[in-house]
Amino acid sequence: MRVLVFNAGSSSLKLGVHDIGMTSHQRLKATFDRFGGGRCVARITGPKGTRQEALDHADIPAVIAAVPALLGAEGLGAPDAVGHRVAHGGARFTDPARVDDALLAEVEALTPLAPLHNPAGLAGMRAAMAAWPGLPQVAVFDTAFHLTNPPRATTYAIPAPWRDAGMRRYGFHGTSHKYVAERAAAELGEPLRDLRLVSLHLGNGASACAILNGESIDSSMGLTPLEGLVMGTRSGDVDPGLFGFLERRFGLSAAEVEDALYRESGLLALAGVSDMQEVEARAEAGDSAAQLAIEVCAYRARKYLGAYAAAMGGLDTVVFTGGIGENSASMRRRICDGLGFLGLHLDQDRNLAVDLSDGAAPQIQAYGSRVRVLVTETAEQLMIAQETACHLARPAPGPAVIPVAVSARHVHLDAAAVAALFGAGHVLRPACPLRQPGHWVAEERVTLEGPRGRLERVAILGPLRDRVQVEVSRTDSFALGLDPPVRDSGRLQDTPHLRLIGPAGTHETDGLIIAARHIHTNPADAARLGLADGDVVDVQLGSPGREVTFARTLVRVSPVAVTEMHIDTDEANAAGLHGAAEGEILPHPARIAPS
Amino acid sequence: MRVLVFNAGSSSLKLGVHDIGMTSHQRLKATFDRFGGGRCVARITGPKGTRQEALDHADIPAVIAAVPALLGAEGLGAPDAVGHRVAHGGARFTDPARVDDALLAEVEALTPLAPLHNPAGLAGMRAAMAAWPGLPQVAVFDTAFHLTNPPRATTYAIPAPWRDAGMRRYGFHGTSHKYVAERAAAELGEPLRDLRLVSLHLGNGASACAILNGESIDSSMGLTPLEGLVMGTRSGDVDPGLFGFLERRFGLSAAEVEDALYRESGLLALAGVSDMQEVEARAEAGDSAAQLAIEVCAYRARKYLGAYAAAMGGLDTVVFTGGIGENSASMRRRICDGLGFLGLHLDQDRNLAVDLSDGAAPQIQAYGSRVRVLVTETAEQLMIAQETACHLARPAPGPAVIPVAVSARHVHLDAAAVAALFGAGHVLRPACPLRQPGHWVAEERVTLEGPRGRLERVAILGPLRDRVQVEVSRTDSFALGLDPPVRDSGRLQDTPHLRLIGPAGTHETDGLIIAARHIHTNPADAARLGLADGDVVDVQLGSPGREVTFARTLVRVSPVAVTEMHIDTDEANAAGLHGAAEGEILPHPARIAPS
Repeated sequence: MRVLVFNAGSSSLKLGVHDIGMTSHQRLKATFDRFGGGRCVARITGPKGTRQEALDHADIPAVIAAVPALLGAEGLGAPDAVGHRVAHGGARFTDPARVDDALLAEVEALTPLAPLHNPAGLAGMRAAMAAWPGLPQVAVFDTAFHLTNPPRATTYAIPAPWRDAGMRRYGFHGTSHKYVAERAAAELGEPLRDLRLVSLHLGNGASACAILNGESIDSSMGLTPLEGLVMGTRSGDVDPGLFGFLERRFGLSAAEVEDALYRESGLLALAGVSDMQEVEARAEAGDSAAQLAIEVCAYRARKYLGAYAAAMGGLDTVVFTGGIGENSASMRRRICDGLGFLGLHLDQDRNLAVDLSDGAAPQIQAYGSRVRVLVTETAEQLMIAQETACHLARPAPGPAVIPVAVSARHVHLDAAAVAALFGAGHVLRPACPLRQPGHWVAEERVTLEGPRGRLERVAILGPLRDRVQVEVSRTDSFALGLDPPVRDSGRLQDTPHLRLIGPAGTHETDGLIIAARHIHTNPADAARLGLADGDVVDVQLGSPGREVTFARTLVRVSPVAVTEMHIDTDEANAAGLHGAAEGEILPHPARIAPS
Repeated sequence: MRVLVFNAGSSSLKLGVHDIGMTSHQRLKATFDRFGGGRCVARITGPKGTRQEALDHADIPAVIAAVPALLGAEGLGAPDAVGHRVAHGGARFTDPARVDDALLAEVEALTPLAPLHNPAGLAGMRAAMAAWPGLPQVAVFDTAFHLTNPPRATTYAIPAPWRDAGMRRYGFHGTSHKYVAERAAAELGEPLRDLRLVSLHLGNGASACAILNGESIDSSMGLTPLEGLVMGTRSGDVDPGLFGFLERRFGLSAAEVEDALYRESGLLALAGVSDMQEVEARAEAGDSAAQLAIEVCAYRARKYLGAYAAAMGGLDTVVFTGGIGENSASMRRRICDGLGFLGLHLDQDRNLAVDLSDGAAPQIQAYGSRVRVLVTETAEQLMIAQETACHLARPAPGPAVIPVAVSARHVHLDAAAVAALFGAGHVLRPACPLRQPGHWVAEERVTLEGPRGRLERVAILGPLRDRVQVEVSRTDSFALGLDPPVRDSGRLQDTPHLRLIGPAGTHETDGLIIAARHIHTNPADAARLGLADGDVVDVQLGSPGREVTFARTLVRVSPVAVTEMHIDTDEANAAGLHGAAEGEILPHPARIAPS
C-alpha cells in the first residue's frame, strides 16, 4: 500500500511517500518552509533525485493542492491512502482514526489545548480532503501513545471544574517515543514488554517518556507541549507563580506570557540562539550564557531520567533521538554522567563514533553497564504510514461474548509460606474447585497486614506456586496502606512487601499486586474469537444502564484454559455486577498491532 | 541567651521562647489563630501549664503587642533578642540579618515574589520592633539555605529581562530542611559533609530538598512556594499552558488562577479536604477521589526522590518531616516502595513504630538497606532561635589579607597512569617547585580528550597520588564536552571519565573536577586570622574597579601548608587578575556555624 504522509506545522510542511508491505520503502520526501510573499522554499528527494527550489505557493494548503502534480512529475502516481500527523487528540483518540467531518470537528474542539499545533494539522487535513476526495485518510495522534499513563501521572492537583474541562497531562511526541522504543527493543533482541525504558526525544521540541513493559506510563510534556524539558524556544517547566509575578511586575497578560514561553524562551532565551550546535560552539568559545544553557538543559533531562527510573522501579534502557539526541555526543555524556548509581556507564569511543545511517541503533554503554543506552533516528513519518496502512488494511472482527468472573482478594502461597503460616509439613486442603482446570480454593485462610491495617480471612488459592503472590483490589490496598502496581499474574519484580499472618506464625513477603484484568482462553476459542496470545482488547460489560468498557484487557492463550474474563471486585462494583456475567469484546483497531 | 521567636503566617502566629546555651530549652510555645470578630483563639504551653482560650486580639500585630504581658504572667521576663521567620529573602539574604528600617524595606521589595507570605512576616517584624524597641531583632530567611543551589538548578529557561527581574528558583522551608538534615547526620553519627541526602518536608506546605555534602543543591519550590509537590491547598507543578487555556476557556485572569492554585488546589481540590489524615480515612472507606489524591501526592514525591538522586549522583539518606512525613506510615511506604533499585528498603515494623518524642530521629530502613531513611520532627523555631543567638553573639572578625594563586588546568597522576602514558618504569621529572612544600610541576605534559575535543600539553603536578585527579576550568570543560562537578580536591566519587594521552599510550580514568576555590593555611596563621579547618569565608579580590567577592571559600588547615588562596583561571579572569594577587577575607556571619 502506498501511503502519503503529511506533517503540517505552523510554518512548515513535511511530506513523505511510503510503500508499506512486508518491508517498507520511502519513495519521496519533501519539506516546504520559509513561506512569505506568496512563495516558499521546497527541498525534495525522490525518484528524480534531490533538488531545492523556490515555488509559487503562498501557504501550506496551496502546497498540498499541488502535490498530485508533484507526484505525477516524479512518476509516482496516486497514493492508496493519506496519513496525517495531528498533535493533540485529547483523551478521546487512543488510536489512529479515519478523517471525516466528525473527526475534523473533534480535532477543532481540541484546539484550545494546542493552540499553535492543532490548527496546522486541521488545515493540512482539509486541504488533503479537497485534493484527494475519494481517498481514505487517517489521522495519527501525537498524544495517543500516552493514553496508557495512569491517573497518578496525568492528574494535576487543580480544581475539579478545570479537570472536568479536560485539563490533565496528555504528553506528545508519542509516535516518536513508540517508534524508538520498539527500535531499541528490536536492536537488543528483547521484547519491549520486558523493558523499563526511558526515551529522550531531544530536538527543537523535546520530551522524555517512561515506557514500562511496552506502555507509556509518564512523559514530560503535559496539557500542552510547553511543560517539561528545555526546548529550542520553549521554556519547559516553570513555577506557576511566574504568571502572577509577571502580571504584577510588567502588566503582562497570560496570553503574552504564554506566547513568550512558546517562542522566546528555552535555549533561545538562555543562549541567544535556539540551535544546539551553535550553542555548543559558543560554549566552547567561552560564552558563559551558552555554557549555562547547556547545563540547564542537560541537568533537567538528567532529573527526568532519575524521576522516571523511580516511577518505573528501575531502569534498564535509555534511547536518545531527535536532532540533539542523535548528534550531540557531549549532551548525551552530560545527561548520563553521574548515573553510575543506576548502573549506567557510557563508553567514550562508542558515544563518539555513533553512526545512524541505514536506520542503525547503536548501543553506546560501557562494557558491564547494566543500563543499555542506544541512539537512533526517529521515524515518525514511517510510523504514521504504517499505522495508516494497519488501520485501513485490517478491520477489527465483530463482537463476541465471553463469560466474566469476579476475583475477590486472594493469595497464592509457596511451600515456605505454608510452613511458616501453618506449621512445618502442613498440606493445604482443597475446599472447592475453580473453573480453570486444576485450580482450587483452600479451606485455610490467612490475614494480610500493611502499615495502615489488616485484612482478615483472605482466601488461599491452590496449587502452590514458586513464589508468593497476593492479589487485592485497589480499595483493599488503601486499607493496607500499601501501593501495589497493577500487574499481570507472575510479574512480581519490585512489588511491595507485606506480612502474612497464619495460626502457626507470620511470613514477610513481597508479591503484592492488583491483578490486571485479563481473558483466559484456549487456542480453539481464540481462533473463533479472532484473538491471539498477548492481544489487548476492549470489553464492554455491566448491568443495563451501568455498562462499562474495560479497555486494554490482556488476552492469554493456554492449551488447558477455559475461556473466561477475570476482573476484581472494584471493577465488578464499577460495572454494577453481582456474581457471574458476560462481556462483549468490542471491535477496536487497538487489537491490531502495527507490523 | 533567651530568644523570642515569631513565625507569622497569613492567618496564624506561632511564637516560642527558647533559652539558647550549651544546651537549649524551650520555655514557652503558643499559637494564635482563628482571627475574626475582633477575637482569636490562643493555645499556650509555658511554665504555668497548658491552656486554650479566646482572646480579644483582632490581628497578629495586636497579639504581638500583648506578648510582653503574656511573658510577665508566665514569669519569664523580657527576652534578650527576637528572631523572626521570613519567607522570601530573594538572592540577597544568604544568612540571618539584623532587623532595621533598611531590612524592612528590602523585604518589602521582595513581596511580589511571595505575595501571601512576606506581608505577614513584615507585619510581625514591625509589631515586634514597636513592642521591644531596644531589643536586637534578627530575620531568618526560609530561602537562605538554598542560595547554594547552582545556576543549573535555579535558572528557568525564560527571557533575560524576566530573569534580570529576579525570576529564578529560590526554594523555601530552608530552615526546616537544614535542621532535619543536621539531625539525621547526628543520628547517623556521620558528618553531613559526607552525605547525599534528600529531605522531604511534607506538611500543609510541602517541599523536597537535595542536600549534597551539606549544601542544598536543589529544592522543589521555586520562584514562589507554589512549585513542586502536591500540598494541602496548593497545586505544586502544573503545565505553564494552564494559564492560557483557562484565560481562553473560562476568561480567568492570571491573578484568579494563581489564587485558586494557592487556596483551592492540592489535596483540597482532589479529595475535597486538605488534611491528609482525613484523606487517608476516606480513601480507606473506598472514596476514589481520596485514593487518587494519595496516589498523585506520593507519586510526585517519589519522582522528586529519583530526580534528586540523579542530581546528586546517588543517594544514601532520606529524611521525612512535617505533619504527613512524621505521622503517615503509609505515605512513607508509598513514596519509598519500588525504590529498591536505589538500595532503599523500608522495615515494616520500624516504619509502623515511629515514635518522635524527645526529639528522636528513628531509622526505619530494613536491615541491609544501603539508603538510610529517618523520620524526625522539624524544629524551625529552635533553629531560628539558635541562628538569632549565633548572629548576635559572635560578630565576625575583622578583615585579613592573604596571598592568592591562580591554578591553571593540571593533572595529578598515580603510578599506573604514569606507566600507561610514559612507559613502564618511567619516573616523572620535577621541573619547578610549587609554593606548597614538597609539591612540584613535572617536565612531562599530557593531553586530555573528551567527547567534544582535546586539551593539549596539560601540566602534571607531583608527587604521585593514590588516584588520578584532573582539574580544569569551567571553560575547559566545555572544550572537552564533559560536565565535571565543582569539588574539593580528593572528593572524586562519581566524577566523569576522560582519556589521558601520553607519548607511550592512553589511560582512561575518572577523576575530572573543577577544583573548588580554597584557602590553604597552617595552625599559626589560622589562629592569627581567626579561622578553623572547615570554615567557609567570603574573600574579596581583584583589580581596582573589578573587585569580585568569592563567597563560601573553604578553609583547609594543615601543619605544613603555606597560607595561600587557590582559584582557577576562570575565577582569575572574572576578577581581572594577571599573576599573583592578594585577597581580603571579609567579616561575614557565614563563618560562624550554628551550634
